[in-house]
Amino acid sequence: MNDYVIPEKLRVVGTTPIRPDGHDKVTGRAKFGDDFHLPGMLHGKVLRSPHAHARIKSIDTSHAETFPGVHAVVTAADFPKISSNVIDAGEAGQIDMQDVADNCIAREKVFYDGHAVAAVAADNAHIAEEAANLIQVDYELLDPVMDVRSAMADNATVLHDNFLPGAFLAPTEKALPNASKLELAMGDVSAGFDEADIIIEREFTTETVHQGYIETHIVTAQWGANGMVTVWTTTQGQFAIRDQLALVLELPMSAITVIPLEIGGGFGGKDSIYIDPLAVVLSKQSGRPVKMVMSRAETLRATGPSSGTYIKARLGVKIDGTLVAAEFHGAYEAGAYSGGPVAPGVSTALTRYNIPNVKIEGYDVLVNKPKVKPYRAPGATPSNFAVETMIDELCRELKLDPVEFRLHNALKTGDRLVLGFPCPEIGGVEILKAVQNHAHYQSDIGGPHRGRGLAYGFWFGAGLPSSADLMVNSDGTVQLCSGSPDMSGTRITLAMQAAEALGIEPNDIFPSVGDTASVGYSFQTVASRTTFATGIAVYQAAQDILAQMAERAALIWQIATDNILIDGGRFVNKTNVQQCFTFKELAGKLVGTGGPIAARALASPEGVGFQITAHLVDLAVDTETGKVDILRYTAFQDAGKAVHPDFVEGQIQGGTVQGIGWALNEEYFYDGAGHLKNTSLLDYRMPTILDVPNIEAVILERPNPGHPYGVRGVGEVPIVPPAAAIANALYDAVGIRMNTLPMTPAKILDKLNSITD
Amino acid sequence: MNDYVIPEKLRVVGTTPIRPDGHDKVTGRAKFGDDFHLPGMLHGKVLRSPHAHARIKSIDTSHAETFPGVHAVVTAADFPKISSNVIDAGEAGQIDMQDVADNCIAREKVFYDGHAVAAVAADNAHIAEEAANLIQVDYELLDPVMDVRSAMADNATVLHDNFLPGAFLAPTEKALPNASKLELAMGDVSAGFDEADIIIEREFTTETVHQGYIETHIVTAQWGANGMVTVWTTTQGQFAIRDQLALVLELPMSAITVIPLEIGGGFGGKDSIYIDPLAVVLSKQSGRPVKMVMSRAETLRATGPSSGTYIKARLGVKIDGTLVAAEFHGAYEAGAYSGGPVAPGVSTALTRYNIPNVKIEGYDVLVNKPKVKPYRAPGATPSNFAVETMIDELCRELKLDPVEFRLHNALKTGDRLVLGFPCPEIGGVEILKAVQNHAHYQSDIGGPHRGRGLAYGFWFGAGLPSSADLMVNSDGTVQLCSGSPDMSGTRITLAMQAAEALGIEPNDIFPSVGDTASVGYSFQTVASRTTFATGIAVYQAAQDILAQMAERAALIWQIATDNILIDGGRFVNKTNVQQCFTFKELAGKLVGTGGPIAARALASPEGVGFQITAHLVDLAVDTETGKVDILRYTAFQDAGKAVHPDFVEGQIQGGTVQGIGWALNEEYFYDGAGHLKNTSLLDYRMPTILDVPNIEAVILERPNPGHPYGVRGVGEVPIVPPAAAIANALYDAVGIRMNTLPMTPAKILDKLNSITD
Repeated sequence: MNDYVIPEKLRVVGTTPIRPDGHDKVTGRAKFGDDFHLPGMLHGKVLRSPHAHARIKSIDTSHAETFPGVHAVVTAADFPKISSNVIDAGEAGQIDMQDVADNCIAREKVFYDGHAVAAVAADNAHIAEEAANLIQVDYELLDPVMDVRSAMADNATVLHDNFLPGAFLAPTEKALPNASKLELAMGDVSAGFDEADIIIEREFTTETVHQGYIETHIVTAQWGANGMVTVWTTTQGQFAIRDQLALVLELPMSAITVIPLEIGGGFGGKDSIYIDPLAVVLSKQSGRPVKMVMSRAETLRATGPSSGTYIKARLGVKIDGTLVAAEFHGAYEAGAYSGGPVAPGVSTALTRYNIPNVKIEGYDVLVNKPKVKPYRAPGATPSNFAVETMIDELCRELKLDPVEFRLHNALKTGDRLVLGFPCPEIGGVEILKAVQNHAHYQSDIGGPHRGRGLAYGFWFGAGLPSSADLMVNSDGTVQLCSGSPDMSGTRITLAMQAAEALGIEPNDIFPSVGDTASVGYSFQTVASRTTFATGIAVYQAAQDILAQMAERAALIWQIATDNILIDGGRFVNKTNVQQCFTFKELAGKLVGTGGPIAARALASPEGVGFQITAHLVDLAVDTETGKVDILRYTAFQDAGKAVHPDFVEGQIQGGTVQGIGWALNEEYFYDGAGHLKNTSLLDYRMPTILDVPNIEAVILERPNPGHPYGVRGVGEVPIVPPAAAIANALYDAVGIRMNTLPMTPAKILDKLNSITD
Repeated sequence: MNDYVIPEKLRVVGTTPIRPDGHDKVTGRAKFGDDFHLPGMLHGKVLRSPHAHARIKSIDTSHAETFPGVHAVVTAADFPKISSNVIDAGEAGQIDMQDVADNCIAREKVFYDGHAVAAVAADNAHIAEEAANLIQVDYELLDPVMDVRSAMADNATVLHDNFLPGAFLAPTEKALPNASKLELAMGDVSAGFDEADIIIEREFTTETVHQGYIETHIVTAQWGANGMVTVWTTTQGQFAIRDQLALVLELPMSAITVIPLEIGGGFGGKDSIYIDPLAVVLSKQSGRPVKMVMSRAETLRATGPSSGTYIKARLGVKIDGTLVAAEFHGAYEAGAYSGGPVAPGVSTALTRYNIPNVKIEGYDVLVNKPKVKPYRAPGATPSNFAVETMIDELCRELKLDPVEFRLHNALKTGDRLVLGFPCPEIGGVEILKAVQNHAHYQSDIGGPHRGRGLAYGFWFGAGLPSSADLMVNSDGTVQLCSGSPDMSGTRITLAMQAAEALGIEPNDIFPSVGDTASVGYSFQTVASRTTFATGIAVYQAAQDILAQMAERAALIWQIATDNILIDGGRFVNKTNVQQCFTFKELAGKLVGTGGPIAARALASPEGVGFQITAHLVDLAVDTETGKVDILRYTAFQDAGKAVHPDFVEGQIQGGTVQGIGWALNEEYFYDGAGHLKNTSLLDYRMPTILDVPNIEAVILERPNPGHPYGVRGVGEVPIVPPAAAIANALYDAVGIRMNTLPMTPAKILDKLNSITD
């Protein structure tokens, strides 16, 4: 890991230039998934399971195949059984590709309401839908398993016969049905609790929620006559889509080109394949390009939401407010296939406090719901909700100020982590002090049934591989191409880093997102990594460009390259300081001195830096209806260095609003048979502009030494504390302790009634 | 310039794998210009001048603007007057960008029949055409100048007031109207002719011809709300289109992204802008994407054909057949704006013979025809026609065998060139000996009115900048991306060079053509340069990949990188030869050892190597109609190293057929007022499959030390000798010496009648 010397003054980083893609996005010119048409293109539709859990006895596609206008019908039989199905995906761990394939189109069994069973390509989407409904599937119904606790109960119906219970199971321990276990521990938790003056243990449940991106999943695929495949899609990662397609279709990676279109939201939910392989095989069979557009109902039923959970936690504290021991048990829904967010969820549950004795247990639990997917900070919201409301309870009990309590226990740089390494540079103390000093914290809340809540949040992010290309044009402008889809303004934040490094203006740089045929491998735009990791690749490419340009200046002046001083976009002859080229002047001389210049850098940086935040919320409760009104909301966050403060603010506001939705409204309603009942955005209730006040974002900057300009990721942690902050404010307002999400008006009324009963 | 050590045995180079784009091209899946549609797209049409030469007094667009369905109308007034209009284009010389702009849309004057005057964007192409016809242009007619000799005559009408007569004009010399002069000389030409025993002087004329690419010019442009421009087009060079658009529209290069689609033929005619800036400005004004498709008539009337010429040459030879002196005067049409192919035309006129005393004079002559463009070997066919028919005449006069004569005078490696440097490695002698030894040369021609002709041809090609990217996928396949549009199979010839260098198979490599946002700058696919120069970039990138992979192997085995032996796609531990990774095995270990690997190389190689060829043709003349039948045709050519022999053969055959068309049929017919009368492919008569026999290609390989596998360019020289070879065969068959192209049945009959009169 590099320790960068971060410049004290930055010229471009920290300013707020207009993003180059903004105008086109708001005027409809930008090309999203559904803006792409090909001559002769067919339209595909999916037949989905109406059952949550069933064995497929037979599929009869004959009526669909002969329906006029139909060109191809596919079922799992048209996809390869994967020969080597467990893939070592490097830092991403082990991935069972047969599971990935089966999630795209069910083989033998369906595992959730909406699971794809067959797909049809036809002249238009209406014909395709009509024909899909003519496919007859004979199911043998199985008991649906809809909840983590019932899934792990003795005699529970088991979803997958070949399911592995995890490496953390002790030799003598009995595996729980449907559950894979992990454990983390530090210190002596039993001795720790013995030291404690107060111990509390609480249970929590949270419901399945969806990321709710506005654009659904849309893909167009063309199977070439030569077996080469081209896929146009909306995704967080063109390389991930390519590699997953290659693995599930058993094609060489080089045979597939994935062209990423603009993305209308992702938040973790667009990092893997769903309809993509169906479109590819429909195209293969029909010999025509095939477009598939998921409806909202399909997106809610059959793409990856975030886990519902069951959590039990125990905290031990001394009378002076020192946390001495903690136990955390978290069972997270994996959905239909293993691999949910339990590891990050439970490992961030306590990581912001310096607790010497910790024991953490996590379960990744199969249930008959769609395979879950990341949602900003995967798994952290439920665990934060649990721990932060318990901390609030301890503060009340000890009559300690909630900020002072957290300052007293705050994790600091160098403290030992349960993850096994010392804590890197972290701005937690600064964040908490900023809360104390803020007008919001010092203000009077006023009025009855009003309350204030605080929650403290943590997330880690990731580095992972990124590539960046810089090409110098002869007029001194620069092309910047990366493999990172722009979900959050990263075109401009990358261009700004290039401009900073090259000594030119950001609007002289054209940033773009390349396809898999033209750019170096890049991991998805996930884990708050793009501005950080792709930014480092950009920085490295810029250093290469400067070095190459210095060589050209040296050639022109007939001096050694060592004698070129590069200073703020100028190239100066140290032996004759009258001789100086601006970047633009020297760019115009490249063709005549050996040809144009370009550079490519691939970075896999470590040192992404921890994300730390505190949220402060004021709310009012209507005690007649249980409705909560958010009155004031301030989010404090350490950005390391905010490359573009407006977009950091946007990330904080967006993540917070999603956290508010998770806290108060959003949930998957399944009936007893496992049918999802709220499959539209009218019934799956996300916050609207009428539901939230302006979220004030307070950005602190404790530079991350792992990035040349001190950048940390910022996109994920804002979703972590809202649920806990709101729950704590609810207690402050009306004296109820909520232990379940979402905290709907009905649940609040129930709780109010139970305490007044 | 590198002198490469060329391996004796090559594993991939020289084989004939199937091109990856072939299937899609023959089954209609490949995306050409007209296969691209955008939502809300408008269609543009151009109003073109009906006059060859006129001043525009006024343009009234009001009726077009109010026509229902019209969204934008543009004239030259909507384009910037270019502030700094002479561009130093490096090796491409000086380019007057105002000329380039005015050629796209006329400002003040129209210079040829079909010159664009205005353009309209409307809901469909029919409305656009209808509306364009409603635009009223008031012209003041000027005398058209249709021929190089009348253009240079005293008192000729002058096309451009500000025309520069060229740097070669002697101080006392009077500039000729409309003509820019250049000169080349070596030795003492007057003393040379004094030495000669026989001197002949002849005059020649040739007509304007078109490249006749099957796909016309097609462009789609979108002006973004942010001022960023995207252009999808069929072109030989996406960067050329981008840079020209930036210069004529006065936009930053970084603001324009040009996405090259497949190209349905170019041959030199698709290396610059025509309708592109019109589509861009129509899009700007309408706020919608705009597609423009040129008709065949528009393509013939208003894109760049190759020059008609007037040539006068004088050769002096000793009785033993030694060429001792030559004078060559060539006047080449530039068309409406200066900058035709006179320089390469005249400088290759004699360059294949070692003549000690040479004087060459060339004139670039403005006429009221479209601005000319390259056509394979620009300008070389007319000059070769002149010199090679005169050589044939000398051989007849001296009773010398035409091959022996040429062998006696052949240019050899190290001979001094009129271009001022010694001749690099050249296979001329081998080519001529191959002719002697070939069954065709030794065969009996048989029959009356049959004849055999030989011509010897030369071309130089060019290096210029190219970029190439290689990306290693985790399954061991490789992406290859370059900036060079594939006109002739270069995807596979580049992939083969990568496979050779990396020690893997060509079908493990996916080659693609990148857009200007994603790849490094690359000069157009012109000048027989792509397999050569982009090939060198690929080779360099492959070396970089191998070095990076060796580092990873060393990391895994914990040894120094020096101890890795790279051998035919294997990485071997020299200290323990049991340890060995294949390329694929090591590719699978990259993610875990520092991340994926990619490499980018930019090359601007010199040492492209000369192209040398001889064509031998047998033909029969129908003395009643003057029709010529080609009976047998053999083309001998030095490929240096034929990367993919099938495609070298295809280039030889294609270029030869185009040369046959130029020789016998093709010409622009203008009437006295300067109107082009043959604006369809029925009237502009190119050879069809019925007109030519199989062209036998004999490929010789004298390696070019300027390329790691010995490659020379091959695409251009095949068009050089056909006209001369056919003219010589005509003399052999029926005793007529043709001094004009095309040698149509009517002209042949005239000549036959004149000698029998």
